[in-house]
Amino acid sequence: MIVTPSSQTPLDTPRNRLFSSTNMAKVRSHNRLNKKLYDARVPALREQLVGLQVRLKEAPFKVLLILAGEEAGGRGELINTLSGWLDPRGFETVAFREPSDEERERPLMWRFWRCLPSHGRLGIFAGSWYTEVLRAQADSEGSKPVLVSRQLERIRHLEKLLSDNGTLIIKVWLHLTKTEQSLRLAEYAANPDTAWRVTEEARRHHQLHDRLARSAARLRAATHRPGALWSVIDAADPRSRNLEVAGLIIQKLNAHLKRFEASPAQPPRAITPKSLEPAGLARLLALPLDQKLSSADYEAKREKWLGRLNRATRAAQAAHRSIIFVFEGWDAAGKGGAIRRLTSAIDARDYRVIPVAKPTDEEKSHHYLWRFWRHVPRAGLITIYDRSWYGRVLVERLEGFCTEPEWRRAYGEMNDFESQLVAHGTIVVKFWMQISREEQLRRFRDREETTYKRHKINAEDWRNRRKWAAYEIAVGDMLARTDTPDAPWHLIAANNKRFARLQILKTAATAIENALGL
Amino acid sequence: MIVTPSSQTPLDTPRNRLFSSTNMAKVRSHNRLNKKLYDARVPALREQLVGLQVRLKEAPFKVLLILAGEEAGGRGELINTLSGWLDPRGFETVAFREPSDEERERPLMWRFWRCLPSHGRLGIFAGSWYTEVLRAQADSEGSKPVLVSRQLERIRHLEKLLSDNGTLIIKVWLHLTKTEQSLRLAEYAANPDTAWRVTEEARRHHQLHDRLARSAARLRAATHRPGALWSVIDAADPRSRNLEVAGLIIQKLNAHLKRFEASPAQPPRAITPKSLEPAGLARLLALPLDQKLSSADYEAKREKWLGRLNRATRAAQAAHRSIIFVFEGWDAAGKGGAIRRLTSAIDARDYRVIPVAKPTDEEKSHHYLWRFWRHVPRAGLITIYDRSWYGRVLVERLEGFCTEPEWRRAYGEMNDFESQLVAHGTIVVKFWMQISREEQLRRFRDREETTYKRHKINAEDWRNRRKWAAYEIAVGDMLARTDTPDAPWHLIAANNKRFARLQILKTAATAIENALGL
Repeated sequence: MIVTPSSQTPLDTPRNRLFSSTNMAKVRSHNRLNKKLYDARVPALREQLVGLQVRLKEAPFKVLLILAGEEAGGRGELINTLSGWLDPRGFETVAFREPSDEERERPLMWRFWRCLPSHGRLGIFAGSWYTEVLRAQADSEGSKPVLVSRQLERIRHLEKLLSDNGTLIIKVWLHLTKTEQSLRLAEYAANPDTAWRVTEEARRHHQLHDRLARSAARLRAATHRPGALWSVIDAADPRSRNLEVAGLIIQKLNAHLKRFEASPAQPPRAITPKSLEPAGLARLLALPLDQKLSSADYEAKREKWLGRLNRATRAAQAAHRSIIFVFEGWDAAGKGGAIRRLTSAIDARDYRVIPVAKPTDEEKSHHYLWRFWRHVPRAGLITIYDRSWYGRVLVERLEGFCTEPEWRRAYGEMNDFESQLVAHGTIVVKFWMQISREEQLRRFRDREETTYKRHKINAEDWRNRRKWAAYEIAVGDMLARTDTPDAPWHLIAANNKRFARLQILKTAATAIENALGL
Repeated sequence: MIVTPSSQTPLDTPRNRLFSSTNMAKVRSHNRLNKKLYDARVPALREQLVGLQVRLKEAPFKVLLILAGEEAGGRGELINTLSGWLDPRGFETVAFREPSDEERERPLMWRFWRCLPSHGRLGIFAGSWYTEVLRAQADSEGSKPVLVSRQLERIRHLEKLLSDNGTLIIKVWLHLTKTEQSLRLAEYAANPDTAWRVTEEARRHHQLHDRLARSAARLRAATHRPGALWSVIDAADPRSRNLEVAGLIIQKLNAHLKRFEASPAQPPRAITPKSLEPAGLARLLALPLDQKLSSADYEAKREKWLGRLNRATRAAQAAHRSIIFVFEGWDAAGKGGAIRRLTSAIDARDYRVIPVAKPTDEEKSHHYLWRFWRHVPRAGLITIYDRSWYGRVLVERLEGFCTEPEWRRAYGEMNDFESQLVAHGTIVVKFWMQISREEQLRRFRDREETTYKRHKINAEDWRNRRKWAAYEIAVGDMLARTDTPDAPWHLIAANNKRFARLQILKTAATAIENALGL
């Protein structure tokens, strides 16, 4: 269980220090630490760091140390120093080079999701979601403001999501003035072992130092939020820099651990839900469920729509567009059968069905969306989620597997996830398969009475069925809050299986055609 | 626990049918199935398939259905049909397109390892380790015999490893005569929905049909082994083909499940080992452990070797060569400290330390090597395994976590794993850190008495210590059986920590320099 720390953490770096790039010299003229003093302070710091790592190991959260800063601020040296101080078994350094083709074929944030450490571990991010924004700022005179502002929105969203989930995010900006930078670059250039660091880009960034420092200050201001605060560290003196960053980790991690240790996880508690969005429930209840469709009529129309769906998926593949289908619905609503019919129109080499059951322990040591990010398809491929992230606001809400703030946040998190997919070009098609309570009963009984269907029904299905009214409320809220223009919900009347299957084929084909402008 | 099925499964396809490519027409003139008969047989097959999937779900093994065959044999159609019959929640189709850059930067087999389904699931391999070999055969007149024979060796090895681990491997060759192939290609070409399949390559392969069929027959003969048998299926009539493959799955899966159900896993049982290779133990015991090294001498030499190691790792990176360090040794032998010193010479963005503890449940549902394959580094990067796959022949052997045949096989499996890494260009450096029993006792006591070291010692360490003699035997066997020219063991005398660390720096730097020819 995740306990959410208070989001009221005060901004802990004075505003003027954080956002001003010009007054920096004044603020940090204080310390040039001599080696003796430094060496004397290191052992205690190390002991504290390792002690905290031991406590972190058992904690239900992860730590991200995100490092950024001016060119030549010594990020690499700092990481090497920290690596020498920390227990190597409990942390990992995450560096990002050129995105691989597997990364380029997914939404931008995918490569960061896949590199998140699991609970109990510290990830030192040598690069991060800031790297590209900073590079873009350096390359342009702010000519791509829309892109950047969208990207900022994504960053704020990801950091909030992680922090809400309990992640301790420590963001460090290693600051150098232009003069100090020039000294550092000269030092590098003079040493054959480090001369390679003084690249063309480094020289160019040095020329642009003041402009870049100003835009970086704006970037920090725009992303300095509770739970994801920036700390600006003077990087002119490497020894002070190392001690300051280590001290920051110790202080923050200690406080974070205390907060968790003080409020242990609550045991799960099922609740009787109140409808947040009666309009969603009304929409659900208004759906007529019993349609007629003759077998002959079904056969004829099915062939037509299978053909259209097949052509649509092939066109999507040719255009390198991925597709995600989400199947949600009552137990016994016919998700399995519908998926089987849907996939009969698609080359089996192009899709993958992800049945969503109990998370594995690796999945449990991440944010609940992680296990779904994992399976986001590559360009031109299709993922079919048989149940999905919406479990968060259905079963997890109702069974008390997550807290109320958690499932309340989830609507926005899921909308954002889908919007990232769609912005990347992925076509997202979501189905809710609706049956009546009586129809479910009939199907449950049928399952119990049919040998080869018996494995499909168990005591939990019956238990869930008794909570029908509660589930209806949760479904209504979900429909209302996550029915977005990017990824609308398609309600499928499913008392009549043939009708439902045909409806799904039509909806799927049409949605893809529309997305492709066919 | 994995129960190994008998490897005495008889070859179940008559030899003449399997390996002759010319007499095929005779063998399969029998059946052109009409639609009515076909439709009548499908429901029972489906029920059986789904019933077996239910049983498979709980089984401690996975199923691989590997499909290959002549051009236009209808692999795609077959997979689509099977997908319609199977429960989509319990199987996945695995297709291989062009290798991604992440795949190209690792040994060839990495992309197959990462796609293996977990226990209880069926993976339908639309492409496989055969695809490239078959393509190479088509492209050349057998001009690369060495490459192919090496590749065959790897394939046989992988299939044996998987099968020994309990995996049911079903290999199906969809056969078409040249005449039938020509009919099928003409059909495809005539239909606008399938015309795209008749590629230049397809036409060329059709021209070469007889030669390709002969070389494919040789390939099948070379890889037709117990536990990984080929079944040649006549693909001329799609309906018969579908039924035959479904029948094959049913028959094989049923037999495999019965074998597992008949011999449930044995509870783990610790054993007193007998030395297999006294020479290994002798080598271990002959190592002088107590060296002198003054602090000043250490400091001076350390700087020199850190510099060399740093230059060597940078040279490796420039050459896109990856490095794997393996650290094994007694509890408290100083692995953590040694790793910290080693990494102090390397840019933290370039290495990753993988601490090997209890496997996660995802890892447990795979072959024991899977969790190590996962972390094989990309080109130019470094993975440091803090404990490793050698746990199989140490703790797992001694605690009875695996059976005797399992750990006995493991020596060869691990040698093969390392040889694949080395063949790909990875530099593999393995350390065994040796201390005396007295030195261990001293360190254990020190850990118990020092506040910040206390987390490093627990009851299990003391338990393992009581089995010192048994462990010594297992270590000796490991040293003797896995000390290969590709990846030799470096024994490090570690009673003197400074000496050990320096020795490791030297050995690491020298090994990399040698591998790079510096």
